[in-house]
Amino acid sequence: MSLLLPLLRGAPGALRPSCRAAAASRRGLGSSSSSSGGWGPPGGGAGVRPGRRSLLAGLAGAAAALAGLGLVRRAEMVSREPVAPGLGEEQEQEQDELSRRCGDFMAPPVSGLRELRSRRQEMRSRMEMLIMETQSQVCRALAQVDRGAAFTVDRWERKEGGGGISCVLQDGNIFEKAGVNVSVVFGHLSEEAAQQMRSRGKTLKTKNGKLPFCAMGVSSVIHPKNPHVPTIHFNYRYFEIENADGTKQWWFGGGTDLTPTYLNEEDAIHFHKTLKEACDQHNPELYPKYKKWCDDYFYIKHRGERRGIGGIFFDDLDSPSKEEAFQFVQSCAKAIVPCYVPIVKKHSRDPFTPEEKLWQQLRRGRYVEFNLVYDRGTKFGLATPGSRIESILMSLPLTARWQYMHTPPEESREAEILEVLRNPKDWVH
Amino acid sequence: MSLLLPLLRGAPGALRPSCRAAAASRRGLGSSSSSSGGWGPPGGGAGVRPGRRSLLAGLAGAAAALAGLGLVRRAEMVSREPVAPGLGEEQEQEQDELSRRCGDFMAPPVSGLRELRSRRQEMRSRMEMLIMETQSQVCRALAQVDRGAAFTVDRWERKEGGGGISCVLQDGNIFEKAGVNVSVVFGHLSEEAAQQMRSRGKTLKTKNGKLPFCAMGVSSVIHPKNPHVPTIHFNYRYFEIENADGTKQWWFGGGTDLTPTYLNEEDAIHFHKTLKEACDQHNPELYPKYKKWCDDYFYIKHRGERRGIGGIFFDDLDSPSKEEAFQFVQSCAKAIVPCYVPIVKKHSRDPFTPEEKLWQQLRRGRYVEFNLVYDRGTKFGLATPGSRIESILMSLPLTARWQYMHTPPEESREAEILEVLRNPKDWVH
Repeated sequence: MSLLLPLLRGAPGALRPSCRAAAASRRGLGSSSSSSGGWGPPGGGAGVRPGRRSLLAGLAGAAAALAGLGLVRRAEMVSREPVAPGLGEEQEQEQDELSRRCGDFMAPPVSGLRELRSRRQEMRSRMEMLIMETQSQVCRALAQVDRGAAFTVDRWERKEGGGGISCVLQDGNIFEKAGVNVSVVFGHLSEEAAQQMRSRGKTLKTKNGKLPFCAMGVSSVIHPKNPHVPTIHFNYRYFEIENADGTKQWWFGGGTDLTPTYLNEEDAIHFHKTLKEACDQHNPELYPKYKKWCDDYFYIKHRGERRGIGGIFFDDLDSPSKEEAFQFVQSCAKAIVPCYVPIVKKHSRDPFTPEEKLWQQLRRGRYVEFNLVYDRGTKFGLATPGSRIESILMSLPLTARWQYMHTPPEESREAEILEVLRNPKDWVH
Repeated sequence: MSLLLPLLRGAPGALRPSCRAAAASRRGLGSSSSSSGGWGPPGGGAGVRPGRRSLLAGLAGAAAALAGLGLVRRAEMVSREPVAPGLGEEQEQEQDELSRRCGDFMAPPVSGLRELRSRRQEMRSRMEMLIMETQSQVCRALAQVDRGAAFTVDRWERKEGGGGISCVLQDGNIFEKAGVNVSVVFGHLSEEAAQQMRSRGKTLKTKNGKLPFCAMGVSSVIHPKNPHVPTIHFNYRYFEIENADGTKQWWFGGGTDLTPTYLNEEDAIHFHKTLKEACDQHNPELYPKYKKWCDDYFYIKHRGERRGIGGIFFDDLDSPSKEEAFQFVQSCAKAIVPCYVPIVKKHSRDPFTPEEKLWQQLRRGRYVEFNLVYDRGTKFGLATPGSRIESILMSLPLTARWQYMHTPPEESREAEILEVLRNPKDWVH
């Protein structure tokens, strides 16, 4: 497991929520807390070059398209940072391309356009663009499927450096709770974090006793209402640590996994096949290796069950090259929507009984057990003072159930999924 | 915290459920798993001395009284173990008294009557009688209040020594989930357990590398349906470890604490006052000390909130004498029904809104967070191979909820309880 995971989910240090876009739908009592301090790219001006397709237009267009459908409420309409002056035609086009891509994001990127531009060839920037893009693609695809519910966009800052953007859709038509979270945090690694990394075999050489790091990622859990629509979880992350000699250690981690309430073999095959195809583009050994890693990681030991029917999971990926590792992660990220959304569409109108809903709630209880008892990211995040708890626990379902000594009847559909959770299957061979 | 807690909640080693009394009420799908291997006191005969008020009669009377009310379904009607022959009149009366007390239990004691008799002056036996009695008193009081639901009585054995009796009432009229669990386990301390005890400052001297121990206790969590009826938790336990020189280390631990969804000051005062009175009989310093310990222990660090409005909590109690410590624990155990049942009766018919029910569900989510993330007993139990998971997780509510960024309006009744959870109050001065 990477330490990145917790750092991403809940960045250490006091957090200042700097923007809250839209109130969540309020079916219950109370309200979602809302703050609306202004944000924007650090030092960003207000000018827009005439004759250029501005960031303003890009953002406004995307926002309007979605707002028109009532799908997405934006944190703020525009980031008005101008393209840097004094650039050649080619560089200007490249910068414009960067602005255009940012225009589709759920909120301006954590690092700010200016900074992303200044180091646009570096992996930090490329990965930040990828995770922002992934967040946006997933949120838009889900909002479109849900037809009615809006994502709440929370932008938060981390005192020590960086911040995040949490997008949450709660109590929608199709989705009970869907959270897609981006974090980009940097600073110096805490002694505890460094210790944990060393215990995982990393050799860390401090510079004046300090270890500068940068961690970023996108993570998400989507819990639908209908028990015939499975829950999905994914997380893609990148970590950089600066050694004493100025060289950098880096690695990627991530994965996508599915947790159905009932087994649908066709869905399981589609899901795994889509992930396998994404992996196979890079190396045919990846899918089998990461499929097994996933089954091993999402194991609820005290129950002798996996959390779901798996998918892929990997960590400490630092080969064959930074470029190739990134390309692989990108392929995985691009596979999220196609591996999941068709399954949602296929089953979102399936009829279900109260008993099926109850079984879903019991399985949600197991989901909570895994996340609170075993998931290293959640555990580490909760143990880190100043973590953004709401982002860490966004992964928990809206509702869950624990029933003493519940055992489904033999040969039932409930027993069928349990069997697969106890003995993972190979879905693609 | 004592290691006893986990050992009691989930005894290590493979468990053989040896008896299941009554099926739980089945409102959902599936069924409660049921096994019914015979049990009974080891080596117990069938004879009953003529002319003596037999155990048979005692048990049958108690069972009939309750069965008539439909309140309690017994695991088995009778333990037919005879009074040992060749005793003087006084000893016989004493033994008869032991039989009579056992007759009121939810199931025959784990150690069996013969063994309890043979060492009836020892603390192990006296404490086992107390925890069995407490289980019975609480279950009967709750069943009577619920008027309709029955406790399921599960008797389970621990391969390495000992076992337990789990009584669970699920989906009753008043109670959503009420579990009262007794465990009596013995054998040799695992290296992990010994290590954990040493880290708590215990000096353990092994005999041939082994540490014989005996741990027992009663633990319970009662979750009512009505959001105006609070959840209660209690646990009373006793631990013995045999040193290399044959001497024994022993200590008691325990506590009772209340988790209301809404604050009712009158109830809070009644609850704390009843506990204080129980403590004050022994030493006026106990209540303030154990009240603070309780507030400190049931702290959900990542939320900055206590789980509830506290009560008392203590551990490692080995003074002023074994007898006095036991008397204190006995007073605490006897205070459970009077500190809680009047509150249940007072509020069980209070009307409530869907919004109040929702707030209860959110608070139940916090209960789950505490138990799975912080509670040492639960964590240790889940990490121990072969634990009885169903008994450990009996403490979780039937249903719970997690809502992103839920904050109650200022001045609301939800904000009122949050304030008390963040800043514990002194209820009795």
